[in-house]
Amino acid sequence: MSRIAYVNGRYQAYGQAGVHIDDRGYQFADGVYEVMAVVDGRLPDEILHLSRLDRSLAELAIALPMSRPALRHVVRETIRRNRLRSGIVYLQITRGVARRDHPFPPHAVPSLVVTARRLKGPPASVREAGVAVITLPDIRWKRRDIKSISLLPNVLAKQAAREQQAYEAWLVNEQGTITEGSSTNAWIVSRDGWLITHPADHDILGGITRTRVLTAARQLGVVVQERPFTRDEALAAKEAFLTSTTSHVLPVVSIDGKPIGNGHPGEITLALLAHYLSNRDASKSCTA
Amino acid sequence: MSRIAYVNGRYQAYGQAGVHIDDRGYQFADGVYEVMAVVDGRLPDEILHLSRLDRSLAELAIALPMSRPALRHVVRETIRRNRLRSGIVYLQITRGVARRDHPFPPHAVPSLVVTARRLKGPPASVREAGVAVITLPDIRWKRRDIKSISLLPNVLAKQAAREQQAYEAWLVNEQGTITEGSSTNAWIVSRDGWLITHPADHDILGGITRTRVLTAARQLGVVVQERPFTRDEALAAKEAFLTSTTSHVLPVVSIDGKPIGNGHPGEITLALLAHYLSNRDASKSCTA
Repeated sequence: MSRIAYVNGRYQAYGQAGVHIDDRGYQFADGVYEVMAVVDGRLPDEILHLSRLDRSLAELAIALPMSRPALRHVVRETIRRNRLRSGIVYLQITRGVARRDHPFPPHAVPSLVVTARRLKGPPASVREAGVAVITLPDIRWKRRDIKSISLLPNVLAKQAAREQQAYEAWLVNEQGTITEGSSTNAWIVSRDGWLITHPADHDILGGITRTRVLTAARQLGVVVQERPFTRDEALAAKEAFLTSTTSHVLPVVSIDGKPIGNGHPGEITLALLAHYLSNRDASKSCTA
Repeated sequence: MSRIAYVNGRYQAYGQAGVHIDDRGYQFADGVYEVMAVVDGRLPDEILHLSRLDRSLAELAIALPMSRPALRHVVRETIRRNRLRSGIVYLQITRGVARRDHPFPPHAVPSLVVTARRLKGPPASVREAGVAVITLPDIRWKRRDIKSISLLPNVLAKQAAREQQAYEAWLVNEQGTITEGSSTNAWIVSRDGWLITHPADHDILGGITRTRVLTAARQLGVVVQERPFTRDEALAAKEAFLTSTTSHVLPVVSIDGKPIGNGHPGEITLALLAHYLSNRDASKSCTA
């Protein structure tokens, strides 16, 4: 089946789906995005994603190009036309097309692209073995709380990780603390069993899966500390893992080549993964 | 006359000129650009721009999508088809179209867009009155030497300047020094007549006009210091100005509402502007 994309009011064949060369998303990275999971025809985290989208747009003073009900309809129609049961919806909004000039153009109409495709979570073998991460300096801009498409430093970090046969790069700021991964949030479990992750301030993106895992931890009675942690603390941790919409909860078993804990996925990590998946699968939000 | 754009091998009507929604320039800001002046049918700084383009591409491991002679031909043909005598050529190269995933795609073909349009430099009235700048925290990523399209923080800074009736925002880093403007380089002339501008390291973009002005200063016997300078030094300066391909050499007469020197364009600034324009107009590089 050929894929269908929604672009600025039209459902189009994916191969022909384009935007104008003067779209400010293309010239200035002047836009935001969301990636939502589709699970058995449902959108379990839709409201959280759309609320974050509203916040990102507000921070950049970009208007939502249609009402939220209309946007939810477009998302569902894109899923339907692609006959998608499980995978992801990608949603991108930019400030629109205007003659190239840095300040906000007075009359641009925001652009909206929605696509949907099959995507499986990490295979069981990867979840069971865990993944390697490396650390790199965090050279990104200072507003990572905005889910912008200004992702070049993230791309470079992810590529560096892959060149070292690692799944992800954890980014270390000038204070020596790990902020997050290039496209995932970073977590450790300390020797005394505390679950630690960076607070959701301007230094990281507040992940939706991060929110879900915080809830799961509280339900499981795990003590949570939202605070910065250092690379040294991470290397000394009992467990480590990363989270994102597409990675779920993924055990980290080595950092910069050094094994974490016993070098295998940790107990708390696996309990959080199981709880996260069962909560998500029990959710009621549907695409119909 | 309707405008013509070059996009990935074809000269197209500007209104229809588009790129695919999965172009990595659109989703990841994974690309670079140049803006070159066209002066009376000539490209006076072409070689400097193309050398900087090569460097930006090399830093991101993106291949030039054609040979340099072929690219120069496309630039000239775009100018010719737009019947442009004076204005700018905009040239953008991205990593190309690929299914969305952060690491470099193994088989993507880089995208190339070239456009040309009329654009006059700052009007004489603005040059004679000088412009106001504000200062803002420099929240950008740490590789400003790469002329990437990851420009969202620059857009936000420029917009903040315009909302305060200023022409530009000068960006102040955590050490309290002014790095550069959101799309221009920043300069001051100290009380003892030294011309000071930030060194061309990773913290700023090494502007082509910046290079031209350094040459002009040496020819005029002005003593140059390429070193960081603070906001306080700027406020105490005798003169200040900014440079870029489209702004040329533009006097700055106030910073954060405080007049610089006597509140009028400075002597050294105006001498550098005159020398810059006469050097540029005497250059031989032609578009034919």
